[in-house]
Amino acid sequence: MIAVLRLGHRPERDKRITTHVCLVARAFGADGVYVVGKIDRQLLAAVERVVENWGGPFWVKFIENPFGLLREWKSAGGKIIHLTMYGLPLSKVLPSLPKSNSILIVIGGEKVPPRYYSESDFNVGIGNQPHSEVAALAICLDRISERAWENKVFENARLVIRPSERGKEIVETGGKKKPF
Amino acid sequence: MIAVLRLGHRPERDKRITTHVCLVARAFGADGVYVVGKIDRQLLAAVERVVENWGGPFWVKFIENPFGLLREWKSAGGKIIHLTMYGLPLSKVLPSLPKSNSILIVIGGEKVPPRYYSESDFNVGIGNQPHSEVAALAICLDRISERAWENKVFENARLVIRPSERGKEIVETGGKKKPF
Repeated sequence: MIAVLRLGHRPERDKRITTHVCLVARAFGADGVYVVGKIDRQLLAAVERVVENWGGPFWVKFIENPFGLLREWKSAGGKIIHLTMYGLPLSKVLPSLPKSNSILIVIGGEKVPPRYYSESDFNVGIGNQPHSEVAALAICLDRISERAWENKVFENARLVIRPSERGKEIVETGGKKKPF
Repeated sequence: MIAVLRLGHRPERDKRITTHVCLVARAFGADGVYVVGKIDRQLLAAVERVVENWGGPFWVKFIENPFGLLREWKSAGGKIIHLTMYGLPLSKVLPSLPKSNSILIVIGGEKVPPRYYSESDFNVGIGNQPHSEVAALAICLDRISERAWENKVFENARLVIRPSERGKEIVETGGKKKPF
């Protein structure tokens, strides 16, 4: 099991970034995303629409007590990776991550409280330059899964893309194609 | 030379996503980003601040005629990769990309005009699931550069991070450290 913990989501300001975080989590093989804060129905609807069309399983949960989650995660034997531009290279950390462990990937926004640095098992930098939690999450999942996302098949997809040189080829699981 | 062409930037709605696109372009080794549309001074200031602190070279240019750019790019011998969830896997396309070619990576938002599909040399899907142009760009640059970004050194950086297991270690190029 791989899950993501998204810190610091502010519905008005971060809606699109957090939506990207959730879709990247799904596309690159995470099982779900915990978002800290009150339920954001718009975000939830956007992700549900994607799961309905393109398949799952995938979940988004809103939680109020992130440190409670960290505690539970660790006491169940899971590992916690906090992505931060200040952290160690993932390549140094990967050998300490047995595949059997559940992994929680913590991603923040600009100001992450120091407690996350101390309570995580690993503080990992996807490079040490300022960029994007969306990109950092994608590269982290790519490396942890050893590219497994490239062949991932989603369950109960209503729509599937047939990769194409030009244009758009969408196959409805009934078999019908939509034109460009 | 690797550059990015960002389509469909709407200053009010896309400011943060396009900022992420620019910072990812810089961090993962592109030379600069063309943004289609009128100059967005807020976006420009955000990127300039990063380059001032963390080094360059890196540029952002606003252009009004993207198809003119595509034409010039191709007539100078460069190749154009359009990232789209409908495209072919990058692994199929990479062997056709000699390292000597300049590469322009085109990324859109939701509705990319069909003309980009026909005028690009390659339509590439970073997976065929809906996710994020920010993540797609990061993975694309990671694969094209064969992870060269992991060791990239930026010129004239005022600040450099010393990767750390816990906390934040920023070295000012004068040598002073900022505390956590």
